[in-house]
Amino acid sequence: MAEITAQLVKALRERTGAGMMECKSALQEAKGDLAEGEVVLRKRGIASAHKKSSRATKQGLVGSYIHHGGQLGVMVEVNCESDFVARTEDFQNLVHDLAMHIAAADPQFIRKEDVTPAALEKEKEIQRARVVAEGKPEKMADKIVEGRLGKFYEEVCLYNQPFVKENTLTVEEYIKTKIAKLGENITVARFTRFKVGDE
Amino acid sequence: MAEITAQLVKALRERTGAGMMECKSALQEAKGDLAEGEVVLRKRGIASAHKKSSRATKQGLVGSYIHHGGQLGVMVEVNCESDFVARTEDFQNLVHDLAMHIAAADPQFIRKEDVTPAALEKEKEIQRARVVAEGKPEKMADKIVEGRLGKFYEEVCLYNQPFVKENTLTVEEYIKTKIAKLGENITVARFTRFKVGDE
Repeated sequence: MAEITAQLVKALRERTGAGMMECKSALQEAKGDLAEGEVVLRKRGIASAHKKSSRATKQGLVGSYIHHGGQLGVMVEVNCESDFVARTEDFQNLVHDLAMHIAAADPQFIRKEDVTPAALEKEKEIQRARVVAEGKPEKMADKIVEGRLGKFYEEVCLYNQPFVKENTLTVEEYIKTKIAKLGENITVARFTRFKVGDE
Repeated sequence: MAEITAQLVKALRERTGAGMMECKSALQEAKGDLAEGEVVLRKRGIASAHKKSSRATKQGLVGSYIHHGGQLGVMVEVNCESDFVARTEDFQNLVHDLAMHIAAADPQFIRKEDVTPAALEKEKEIQRARVVAEGKPEKMADKIVEGRLGKFYEEVCLYNQPFVKENTLTVEEYIKTKIAKLGENITVARFTRFKVGDE
């Protein structure tokens, strides 16, 4: 039988709001699997479909920026390591500036690694056609295309974009200045950008 | 040859920022397809990867609500038919109240129709197991499960949730009072909810 630790019971209680003994028994049936334990509780009619709370495993802030009289909005989550840093004015300003940057620069991805293979392939195809249209020798096409991808990443990846408030730095470099100052790792976890009428 | 209307040329200009004749020629090559025309322009090196602007086809507002000192944030887009209505205080209050409601009630979907088949199947399976666990006759299980789905929709669908500021109304009913008052159709287009540390 899987060992049901106090920590596991606590985690399930936090997720479901159910009592300690109920959680323990559900976890035993679920062989120590947290998500399965929640299903067991729900099958017994104890937990509701609605997750009561979830425990934050990271620190940070959610910030938003609404522009153009409500025609454009950005929400961003930025993580750090401690709530002490999350509460500093420096960190709050960083979150605000990043939200504003995203509103202005409209990145599609956070990092180069986040560009989807489909988006990358499409871009390569376009650049290859452009090289040919420019009358450049085809055997050099791949090299030229690789070179132009840097420009593509600068356009679509948040970390590679020139920071709107200080365009000698990329957003990544700007974040690094804050990491150096605050002494904690800082990462953009996710963002979303809504424009009225866009899909 | 596909007819290239002035409207189509205008749409491509708005999407790419390219000149009128360039857009017309690209559309001719793309046989009148707007997205394809954009690709043609990019292959010719005229348009950038970055969509310059996109035309809002609907009116409305984007609103946000940040809670718990930046630990929880909601962004919502609400559509109406005219920018006149979008600018009214009633509409602005509606958007704000909906964002606050979503922060508090954590819906997973907008409408019943938006519940994914997988989520619905999982819920039915849980409810069926619960019915059996309660010792109810199995031939009645399907009927009982159907009945309990109403409760599920109330928990996970924004439109079916009791509105947090006035819980005798569902959110849908509350929106309908605004539709009646403002004389335009109003719909929630999309929302997103970030909690620090959640995935």
